[in-house]
Amino acid sequence: MKFRLAGRADVPAILELLADDEISRSRGFGAVPEEADAATWAAFEAIDADPANELIVGEHDGDVVATCQLTFIPGLSRGGAWRMTIEAVRVRGDRRGAGIGKKLMAYAITRARERGCRIVQLTTDKRRAEAQRFYAGLGFVASHEGMKLAL
Amino acid sequence: MKFRLAGRADVPAILELLADDEISRSRGFGAVPEEADAATWAAFEAIDADPANELIVGEHDGDVVATCQLTFIPGLSRGGAWRMTIEAVRVRGDRRGAGIGKKLMAYAITRARERGCRIVQLTTDKRRAEAQRFYAGLGFVASHEGMKLAL
Repeated sequence: MKFRLAGRADVPAILELLADDEISRSRGFGAVPEEADAATWAAFEAIDADPANELIVGEHDGDVVATCQLTFIPGLSRGGAWRMTIEAVRVRGDRRGAGIGKKLMAYAITRARERGCRIVQLTTDKRRAEAQRFYAGLGFVASHEGMKLAL
Repeated sequence: MKFRLAGRADVPAILELLADDEISRSRGFGAVPEEADAATWAAFEAIDADPANELIVGEHDGDVVATCQLTFIPGLSRGGAWRMTIEAVRVRGDRRGAGIGKKLMAYAITRARERGCRIVQLTTDKRRAEAQRFYAGLGFVASHEGMKLAL
């Protein structure tokens, strides 16, 4: 298992991982375009060009089996502490239950420490009870309401 | 009421706003340093230099009475949609209940639209029942658990 920054060639596999999810589908975002469209490529280029964003893939035997996106955010609160936000966490359906998610999170938390962050945060859909147990087991505390406004 | 990007001269007033909060104090972050320290200035410089971050102040009669921080994040999910995260929302204690928070959020949501974001998100401490009602009244949905890991 190897974790690294995603390149352009990983984008189709990442889109497959993002789409392979019942809750994303329920939001109307389950379809993977035949080819990534212009907006998706623009998003990849924006992530790739920005040192505050790291799109991560987990590779096993040459296959992309996991992904997440890390964002490093400076702030005046807590004595000028940086925080790291984790988004778009996925492990390939046929590889779940093998500890890959745990390794992915360990890698992410290591990146947070390397970048000097004092807090790591994420939001997870309230329907994802298993995910919440998983993150709680890693020490995350469900102290906040995660509120979203679609535009 | 005028909203604008914060400058260096606003930092002491923003620190006062951030500190004037019982829940922040309960986390041990309620003290305002006599002068902003090196880490705080470095954080301000990092925010100021990064077009993906906007530290906002609301000014009334020359006084800083509200603040929030906006972060614009590209992502591959939802067809390459940008999202905007709102952090560190505060209205000065003696000005609460006068609709300033609502104006601040309206300004923030306008910035999200101007930057082409398709989702606005924030987390709020579960103890802030009033804040949750406030955000729900603006259309935010408490669909997610906000989980935090202190390092």
